[in-house]
Amino acid sequence: MTDINAYAATEAGGSLAPFSYDPGLIGADEVEIKITACGVCHSDVSMINNDWRGSRYPLVPGHEVVGEIAAVGSGVTHLKVGQMVGVGWTSHSCQHCSPCLSGRQQRCQTGTSTIAGRGGFADRIRVQHIWAVPLPDGIDVKSAGPLFCGGITVFAPFLDFDLKPTDRIGIIGIGGLGHLAVQFANAWGCEVTAFTSSMDKEDELKALGAHRIVNSRDDAAIKAERGYFDYILTTVNVSLNWPLYMRALRPEGKLITVGIIPEPMGIPANALVGGARMVAGSDTGPPDMVAKMLEFCVRHDIKPMIETFPMSECNAAIERLESGKARYRIVLEN
Amino acid sequence: MTDINAYAATEAGGSLAPFSYDPGLIGADEVEIKITACGVCHSDVSMINNDWRGSRYPLVPGHEVVGEIAAVGSGVTHLKVGQMVGVGWTSHSCQHCSPCLSGRQQRCQTGTSTIAGRGGFADRIRVQHIWAVPLPDGIDVKSAGPLFCGGITVFAPFLDFDLKPTDRIGIIGIGGLGHLAVQFANAWGCEVTAFTSSMDKEDELKALGAHRIVNSRDDAAIKAERGYFDYILTTVNVSLNWPLYMRALRPEGKLITVGIIPEPMGIPANALVGGARMVAGSDTGPPDMVAKMLEFCVRHDIKPMIETFPMSECNAAIERLESGKARYRIVLEN
Repeated sequence: MTDINAYAATEAGGSLAPFSYDPGLIGADEVEIKITACGVCHSDVSMINNDWRGSRYPLVPGHEVVGEIAAVGSGVTHLKVGQMVGVGWTSHSCQHCSPCLSGRQQRCQTGTSTIAGRGGFADRIRVQHIWAVPLPDGIDVKSAGPLFCGGITVFAPFLDFDLKPTDRIGIIGIGGLGHLAVQFANAWGCEVTAFTSSMDKEDELKALGAHRIVNSRDDAAIKAERGYFDYILTTVNVSLNWPLYMRALRPEGKLITVGIIPEPMGIPANALVGGARMVAGSDTGPPDMVAKMLEFCVRHDIKPMIETFPMSECNAAIERLESGKARYRIVLEN
Repeated sequence: MTDINAYAATEAGGSLAPFSYDPGLIGADEVEIKITACGVCHSDVSMINNDWRGSRYPLVPGHEVVGEIAAVGSGVTHLKVGQMVGVGWTSHSCQHCSPCLSGRQQRCQTGTSTIAGRGGFADRIRVQHIWAVPLPDGIDVKSAGPLFCGGITVFAPFLDFDLKPTDRIGIIGIGGLGHLAVQFANAWGCEVTAFTSSMDKEDELKALGAHRIVNSRDDAAIKAERGYFDYILTTVNVSLNWPLYMRALRPEGKLITVGIIPEPMGIPANALVGGARMVAGSDTGPPDMVAKMLEFCVRHDIKPMIETFPMSECNAAIERLESGKARYRIVLEN
């Protein structure tokens, strides 16, 4: 095998530089993927910066990969060279712990994150076969990468916390994740309200499927939503006025966060108890759910809105991401 | 009709004194119940003290009533004079709002609490027919009152938040509610851990159905439970170390509070997101669920452990309740 050519940070917060490594012999349960494109996610930046501690360097970011199978290990029978696949947050799992055996492989007790190993800012990548999910016919390959992390992150809680087509859903934060959540929720059959601090996105959000827009910086506007929502999904990483959003829920309403807010969330117990409301979190999804999401995207013509950069301009892409101006997800292309 | 003889507080925090009132003509949809016994709940004390504001005086406490139908309104066809029934937190609901129409009548948008009207520290009480739930054959009448508030409060979240017989459940706070939760959870098929600050209750708790006991005041002991529980039910009204209990949950674990803790609960978002954990609250249950709970109690020989006082000694009963020494629920008898 020839070396893999990647871009890596060599220290916390460092910029990315070309980095080649020898991937060694391919594992019996692995596939090698020739990367077509790779999305850029806030988690890549967090990992580069060692925000969650535990990053190892050289660190190759990238966990929203699409590409073509270039080689398969001796034990891989269901994937073929030339087949198009995608890879998200996880690259390997044990297949025998309770989460793995019960279809929640993303919670494998000894799983490996794609960018804890070597990620997708590269020409090739190796992953365990189950984590290379085939792209269905009809999917837009160029923009599909962000579905594998941003997409599944907002899709999974709709299934796991039982979003109903008859629900009124509010989506807080319309960025890489939120703009996909709006599309999913609309196709789900829900009434969709987008909470955004960028009211200039209004027309765009309506085109994506939002029926209503509320200014997330206007407490009075949020107060006026009292008792309105069955389900609120928040995608932001900052503390909001949680009691206000709790009051915007109907009895039995659900507030789900996919953002890891640094401060503890101060949730009023009386809003939980009086009306049996719920606060929960969600991370990513297992491969079977990713496959269902991709089918759903094809059926409803859902795709990430992207800006593209060549892979070699990955530093500029990260700068653009950090500016907060990208609409809505950045994808690096080989 | 003759006057109803009750005990009432005439001002916030006042002691109870005899109080008679004319109930007027019976409503077409009401029944009058001759009270056999009435449990004493912390909520009675909160209402007497106007802790939640909105108490009206004279206030007749008591919302864990059992008794015999003494009269039925002209529109009541399914209940008969002489039949034994019980009444809990709610006495009237509109029957036509969305919660009422969907079997969650306890969340009626214009419902009346039993002790917002005239409660069960009395010889008789009037309630709307659906809130008088027939006692099944085989139930122990004398101790059944506490099932109608304390019981349903801990039973409802087992159904609503899907406690599974294969779950490991932790129950925090073993008092009037907790000692019933332990019995329910054992009969449900679960492995039951009681968290208590009274380690001298150990033998008693095992007899009630706890398989394991953990000292709720011992942080090191709680830390050692990391990742252990599928479900934790907390019945206390005080702030605990929530991050510690969150860490005691498995991925997809649930922390449910039925206690209205005054301070906001500081829930770490990373414990929610990493593993899709949930925090929720629950209040009481609808009449149909109360009926199912009563059947479950008969089938599994579950009953409140009670201390009894004559109705005329209601002030002494409240004093005993406030001492925290009652094992586990106090019942007033006529």
